[in-house]
Amino acid sequence: MTDFFNDIPQIRYEGPDTDNEFAFRHYNPDEMVMGKRMEDHLRLAVAYWHSFAWEGGDPFGGRTFDRPWFGDTMDHAKIKADAAFELFGILGQPFFCFHDVDVRPEFDSLADNISALDEIADYFGGKMEQTGTKLLWGTANLFSHRRFMSGAATNPDPDVFAWSAATIKGCLDATHRLGGANYVMWGGREGYETLLNTDLGREAEQMARMLSMVIDYKHKIGFKGQILIEPKPQEPTKHQYDFDVATCYGFLKRFGLEDEVRLNIEQGHAILAGHSFEHELALAASLGMLGSIDMNRNDYQSGWDTDQFPNNTPEVALAYYEVLRAGGFTTGGTNFDAKLRRQSLDPEDLVLAHVGGMDVCARGLKAAAAMIEDGTLEAWRAERYAGWDTDSARQMLQSDLASIDKRVRDEDLRPEPRSGRQERLENIVNRFV
Amino acid sequence: MTDFFNDIPQIRYEGPDTDNEFAFRHYNPDEMVMGKRMEDHLRLAVAYWHSFAWEGGDPFGGRTFDRPWFGDTMDHAKIKADAAFELFGILGQPFFCFHDVDVRPEFDSLADNISALDEIADYFGGKMEQTGTKLLWGTANLFSHRRFMSGAATNPDPDVFAWSAATIKGCLDATHRLGGANYVMWGGREGYETLLNTDLGREAEQMARMLSMVIDYKHKIGFKGQILIEPKPQEPTKHQYDFDVATCYGFLKRFGLEDEVRLNIEQGHAILAGHSFEHELALAASLGMLGSIDMNRNDYQSGWDTDQFPNNTPEVALAYYEVLRAGGFTTGGTNFDAKLRRQSLDPEDLVLAHVGGMDVCARGLKAAAAMIEDGTLEAWRAERYAGWDTDSARQMLQSDLASIDKRVRDEDLRPEPRSGRQERLENIVNRFV
Amino acid sequence: MTDFFNDIPQIRYEGPDTDNEFAFRHYNPDEMVMGKRMEDHLRLAVAYWHSFAWEGGDPFGGRTFDRPWFGDTMDHAKIKADAAFELFGILGQPFFCFHDVDVRPEFDSLADNISALDEIADYFGGKMEQTGTKLLWGTANLFSHRRFMSGAATNPDPDVFAWSAATIKGCLDATHRLGGANYVMWGGREGYETLLNTDLGREAEQMARMLSMVIDYKHKIGFKGQILIEPKPQEPTKHQYDFDVATCYGFLKRFGLEDEVRLNIEQGHAILAGHSFEHELALAASLGMLGSIDMNRNDYQSGWDTDQFPNNTPEVALAYYEVLRAGGFTTGGTNFDAKLRRQSLDPEDLVLAHVGGMDVCARGLKAAAAMIEDGTLEAWRAERYAGWDTDSARQMLQSDLASIDKRVRDEDLRPEPRSGRQERLENIVNRFV
Amino acid sequence: MTDFFNDIPQIRYEGPDTDNEFAFRHYNPDEMVMGKRMEDHLRLAVAYWHSFAWEGGDPFGGRTFDRPWFGDTMDHAKIKADAAFELFGILGQPFFCFHDVDVRPEFDSLADNISALDEIADYFGGKMEQTGTKLLWGTANLFSHRRFMSGAATNPDPDVFAWSAATIKGCLDATHRLGGANYVMWGGREGYETLLNTDLGREAEQMARMLSMVIDYKHKIGFKGQILIEPKPQEPTKHQYDFDVATCYGFLKRFGLEDEVRLNIEQGHAILAGHSFEHELALAASLGMLGSIDMNRNDYQSGWDTDQFPNNTPEVALAYYEVLRAGGFTTGGTNFDAKLRRQSLDPEDLVLAHVGGMDVCARGLKAAAAMIEDGTLEAWRAERYAGWDTDSARQMLQSDLASIDKRVRDEDLRPEPRSGRQERLENIVNRFV
Ligand SMILES: [Co+2]
Ligand SMILES: [Co+2]
Ligand SMILES: [Co+2]
Ligand SMILES: [Co+2]
Ligand SMILES: [Co+2]
Ligand SMILES: [Co+2]
Ligand SMILES: [Co+2]
Ligand SMILES: [Co+2]
Repeated sequence: MTDFFNDIPQIRYEGPDTDNEFAFRHYNPDEMVMGKRMEDHLRLAVAYWHSFAWEGGDPFGGRTFDRPWFGDTMDHAKIKADAAFELFGILGQPFFCFHDVDVRPEFDSLADNISALDEIADYFGGKMEQTGTKLLWGTANLFSHRRFMSGAATNPDPDVFAWSAATIKGCLDATHRLGGANYVMWGGREGYETLLNTDLGREAEQMARMLSMVIDYKHKIGFKGQILIEPKPQEPTKHQYDFDVATCYGFLKRFGLEDEVRLNIEQGHAILAGHSFEHELALAASLGMLGSIDMNRNDYQSGWDTDQFPNNTPEVALAYYEVLRAGGFTTGGTNFDAKLRRQSLDPEDLVLAHVGGMDVCARGLKAAAAMIEDGTLEAWRAERYAGWDTDSARQMLQSDLASIDKRVRDEDLRPEPRSGRQERLENIVNRFV
Repeated sequence: MTDFFNDIPQIRYEGPDTDNEFAFRHYNPDEMVMGKRMEDHLRLAVAYWHSFAWEGGDPFGGRTFDRPWFGDTMDHAKIKADAAFELFGILGQPFFCFHDVDVRPEFDSLADNISALDEIADYFGGKMEQTGTKLLWGTANLFSHRRFMSGAATNPDPDVFAWSAATIKGCLDATHRLGGANYVMWGGREGYETLLNTDLGREAEQMARMLSMVIDYKHKIGFKGQILIEPKPQEPTKHQYDFDVATCYGFLKRFGLEDEVRLNIEQGHAILAGHSFEHELALAASLGMLGSIDMNRNDYQSGWDTDQFPNNTPEVALAYYEVLRAGGFTTGGTNFDAKLRRQSLDPEDLVLAHVGGMDVCARGLKAAAAMIEDGTLEAWRAERYAGWDTDSARQMLQSDLASIDKRVRDEDLRPEPRSGRQERLENIVNRFV
Repeated sequence: MTDFFNDIPQIRYEGPDTDNEFAFRHYNPDEMVMGKRMEDHLRLAVAYWHSFAWEGGDPFGGRTFDRPWFGDTMDHAKIKADAAFELFGILGQPFFCFHDVDVRPEFDSLADNISALDEIADYFGGKMEQTGTKLLWGTANLFSHRRFMSGAATNPDPDVFAWSAATIKGCLDATHRLGGANYVMWGGREGYETLLNTDLGREAEQMARMLSMVIDYKHKIGFKGQILIEPKPQEPTKHQYDFDVATCYGFLKRFGLEDEVRLNIEQGHAILAGHSFEHELALAASLGMLGSIDMNRNDYQSGWDTDQFPNNTPEVALAYYEVLRAGGFTTGGTNFDAKLRRQSLDPEDLVLAHVGGMDVCARGLKAAAAMIEDGTLEAWRAERYAGWDTDSARQMLQSDLASIDKRVRDEDLRPEPRSGRQERLENIVNRFV
Repeated sequence: MTDFFNDIPQIRYEGPDTDNEFAFRHYNPDEMVMGKRMEDHLRLAVAYWHSFAWEGGDPFGGRTFDRPWFGDTMDHAKIKADAAFELFGILGQPFFCFHDVDVRPEFDSLADNISALDEIADYFGGKMEQTGTKLLWGTANLFSHRRFMSGAATNPDPDVFAWSAATIKGCLDATHRLGGANYVMWGGREGYETLLNTDLGREAEQMARMLSMVIDYKHKIGFKGQILIEPKPQEPTKHQYDFDVATCYGFLKRFGLEDEVRLNIEQGHAILAGHSFEHELALAASLGMLGSIDMNRNDYQSGWDTDQFPNNTPEVALAYYEVLRAGGFTTGGTNFDAKLRRQSLDPEDLVLAHVGGMDVCARGLKAAAAMIEDGTLEAWRAERYAGWDTDSARQMLQSDLASIDKRVRDEDLRPEPRSGRQERLENIVNRFV
């Protein structure tokens, strides 16, 4: 028991009118939304790395946070775990996520790293059993250590590929043992800084092979969780291979892996790639690739990944609208891959940032559900395409240019445009958000 | 014979030291570069639309140009054609490209549009025979008319799909008749303004069907040219389905069309999509999708497609370096999908913009060839990956996580990073540009 | 009386729970907000150009709208005016805004243009008297005609400066006669496409002289309205001189005009300049330059000015929060410099886009007022700087480096950082939006 | 004498045709350019921080470099200084620049920090005397330590202002003692992360007071160098007060400091602010504010400050063209505020990155000088504005709206646009780059 969150009470739902900072206004786990508990819809997760491992640095400054668990020993790692589960207790969110390097010190040998991971995983296991907190996903950090500076699976040095493979094995083992619902691969260094020293073709082959091995291993050990990859266009690298949903789809399809892998989609990464979050979600859904989400926003004004807690309900509502249209999460959930601003030094900041984010997700989900239940949006969408539901349109779609040309001429077709009604649709959304 | 270019002489190569504005400094068609004539490497094309149909408007202002051929009759269309072939004569570039709407007036019926197109195509045919100018590609404009405001193949109205199909048939017929080396499809309106009224899944199916019909028709009529699609992420639409090379690849692969279609890649569109031009070229090459290029730059500072003539030799050299590494163009070439700035009112501007662009391409090509012949860049690239050429690395790549894990432990592998040498590579490039 | 809006009823407030598309849910003109009528806070205006003059074109397509008033005669101009005042009657917003070219046909001579403007202004005058609709601001369009392609005040040709000056005189006269509350200058072409042909120094002098002449003339004719300039960083030009609030301030200060001119700040332009809207508003307020606002959003994903109706309440609330902190509008107001999407063809779209925008403004204003009345945000802000309110801090600020250095050493000062509490502040905002 | 650069020879000019990696191809210090030695034009400087203090980290990874001087003792600081001056010896560039924290360990008290700085400054002094290397500018790092997380001069805590003031005093003293030609202030944390906790007005006053104190102190101690501020729009903060040249000008003018301060302009920062480098230089020149430059490029594709060595000669030429038009540097020079890519691990990389950058600057300068000497660009620019050099135009500029209006009517002026000739001007530039 640490005393880090000393006087901070467990957060409980008090409704929108409370003026208690330490209460949920909207997040009410047992509230039924479209026939399912809110908690089971959202499947919220705290990210270990940002909340416990990140020290507050940025490219122009170092550590700002002062945490009792900062340090490189197993003892520090356990105090960190204690504090983390204390936060989980305060928030009551059902899940968490972690990388290997978030939870253990760094050793020189792979064997020592895996042992340490295993020891902490066991420590987690005990706490998970006591508290009921579950693992949404585990993952390996294959980007921070200098050995990964030129990539992990895509490294020009086969030994780094080997190290990476062995590390993933250890992390997947731990995730499996802890009952993780998913396993995520984020290719932070799978990309390049300059094309001049890069062999794109070779690196794609390497990346595909690593992913295939992970899938094989998953089946071998009987891990039932979903393998997810997380698109991001750049940062840290100039170009990252998993650029966006469409790019990941093409890669998986190219190597025949599209049935084994789904996507973990982050709002901030969508924005960096020049998309809206809802676009990435809708596209993934239409391709059968929607897995899980990282619900952390970017600042539209900053050209890098700011990983902020969500705070704009209308945006969040549009995201959950796509999730609900796609049938909701199965193994996936809503991870806050979000960090405090580096000036937010206090334990209260850490707690209340999550409280705010959870409330925004709850509001967004409820608004999305209300839009689904209202039905106007979907009715209008269907009506817009109704012409395609006729037999003649379906036949045309299976015909050929010459016969279509003949028909246009014979019937002297002169199609007139119809309103797309964008503003009216936006007004309808604004009834609910 | 118009008198538009009245006193402007035919442009000839005079070498880098001339101070004649109306001469090539670098573009020397017969100069041998890596064993091939420069002209045959570059395969330069003038774009009919920007140079003859565009009137100088922008979102905040109307026509600035004053051209004798502006008007909506077949007579105007023929004066325009006369002027165009006069420009081709002055420049001596081997190719041109056009859309249907660039070359004919707009009629109310499809039949009249196609007749007019056919008449102009015949007029072109005569001039092409006389002058030797060839058609790099033809294409249909399925984005300017209001009927296409919600898409062509992806329109919610099947009649617009029909009109589009019939129009493509007419344009492909004309391209075939004129011996076009390629046929391009740019989906300017195949995308959306708001997800709220859009069915992504349905629209993708429609787009794929249209493309399949085009491929079938091409084979039916015996057109030997290459079908090309041209990626662009946005503008005019908020989101365009052919976002970038990776997205197009995924789309083609999804619908089994990847062997029938290649890409026409534009520098400006690469930039809008968050890529460098050389990235898009290298990626397309690695996927076997490199077809042709639109060598017009964007202004990095403007967030829209400025379609400017290329003027930065180092950038152009890196582009041709990827083209040469991929073996050079086959059916493809270098189109200037570039327009004058709207303040560049004079016939001299139109001629000299092309002269400048052609010279920059010539310099870029020669620099790229010199880098290939020098060999240092490729030697260093190969050396960086040399570890993967060993038997043990190849075997590892075909193995599995558990056996790799065992080897890392047994050998206590601790890989050390090696320099990526980016600045040294950039210095080598700077020897040649 | 046109029949354009035929069956569309006058829009009335029905409260948030109505399911009538043709009703206000939040805009309730007489509702008191912080002791003032909502209408008098917001001072909403319809923009003539987007709603009546714009034809639906974009850089890749032409007119999509079909309006009975499209045409180049005075009769068309009057039908347009009739329709405009019918919209004003339907919406009940108190103000409108216009450019000269929106309301009259274009003639070859300045004299004819001004006469036509005067005739339409008289026509407006009658309608304004009948309906009570007032003029928020008038302005001259000095960017669409080809004569302005290289600038108006900053044109290299003094005759264009002259034409511009005379045009502004005519527009200012008309604005004065119609009792306009402000007169706006937007320098759409006051900038450059290439530095290579531009003399920045000379153009700044020209621009300052024009502005001085306008101020002098305003005083001469007794116009009591406020002169406003509207910052925008680019588009149509590559660089626009009135880049943002800070740039405009520096320009005005340089030429001693800062007491005579205020700013009309647009959300979309703030975003293009790399700022948030609230930043531009807060900065203008801190410099005493806040005049009026254009409440039209940009799409964060598009790199150009999309001029969309506002639809994100939290963003709008933060904007009005700065307006209210600055004491609210005096002569200024809230203009919708917003256009329909070009697929929104119907009269209903035009009406409902405004209805939605007005409702979002009403919600934003009420949320902003609630945040002000709650007081937490301002109390926390004040507390953060409380150290500066001590005598010792004030004295230090008036001292010098050497004495401060001495005190730091003598007292061995070692300042410790305190939390910036960003997420907690964002949570507080989310109580109200 | 360290052995870090062991086998690396002194770099000498060998001309463009050498194939020696360790030679200058273009940088030839004694070569005369427009009547002045190239070295005296460029006044090149190495930045201590990037080349000796930066460890290769980025937001997703830690140290990649392995340097004998990494460590927190005065001994490490001296080995670092030894290595730095060895690099200066190898390169032969005339200047260097440093922050206090680059050159000394960090202590808990201000007094200890200043003592350590003084000791190292003396150590530098000896080496400077021996080698002839001079100090282009000194500066204080008021952004990396956590005490500065909420600003230095603009901190809400007056004690941080005090610490900052005392630190600047120490750095200015050291710069003065070492004969620095300038003193730079870069406000990395003078800005905000969220407007919600920020008082823009108060912070501007604080910033102005600090700057005034620095100016006063400079005069008091007789420092003859130029005080420079360095614009940057954002990063690390969401918004930085010294956004760009225009913003800095407005700030200085507001507080009456415009005669005492000039600007240090960085290419990367220009780009982040939405400008070209040449724009910022030309604007500063036109305002009399051009001081010095940081010649390090950004990657146009990355949304953050990549601080790369320059490698695009045409861009660099346009920058020096503005410097030469403004009369060249006086106290200022060309600093490489550029860092190696983090994969560039080797001593050779550090040397050759500078060699490449120096060569690119030399080529750019020579091209710029050739454009000046050729004269065509300036002749065309002058000709474009020639109309303004007439008496009638000058008189009009001093007149008023009414009299101009009268003249437009009387003369029935109908100005016709003339070509802006952008492409022709770009062709002329391309003769020289
Ligand atoms: Co992220
Ligand atoms: Co993430
Ligand atoms: Co383009
Ligand atoms: Co193109
Ligand atoms: Co706008
Ligand atoms: Co506006
Ligand atoms: Co920088
Ligand atoms: Co700098």
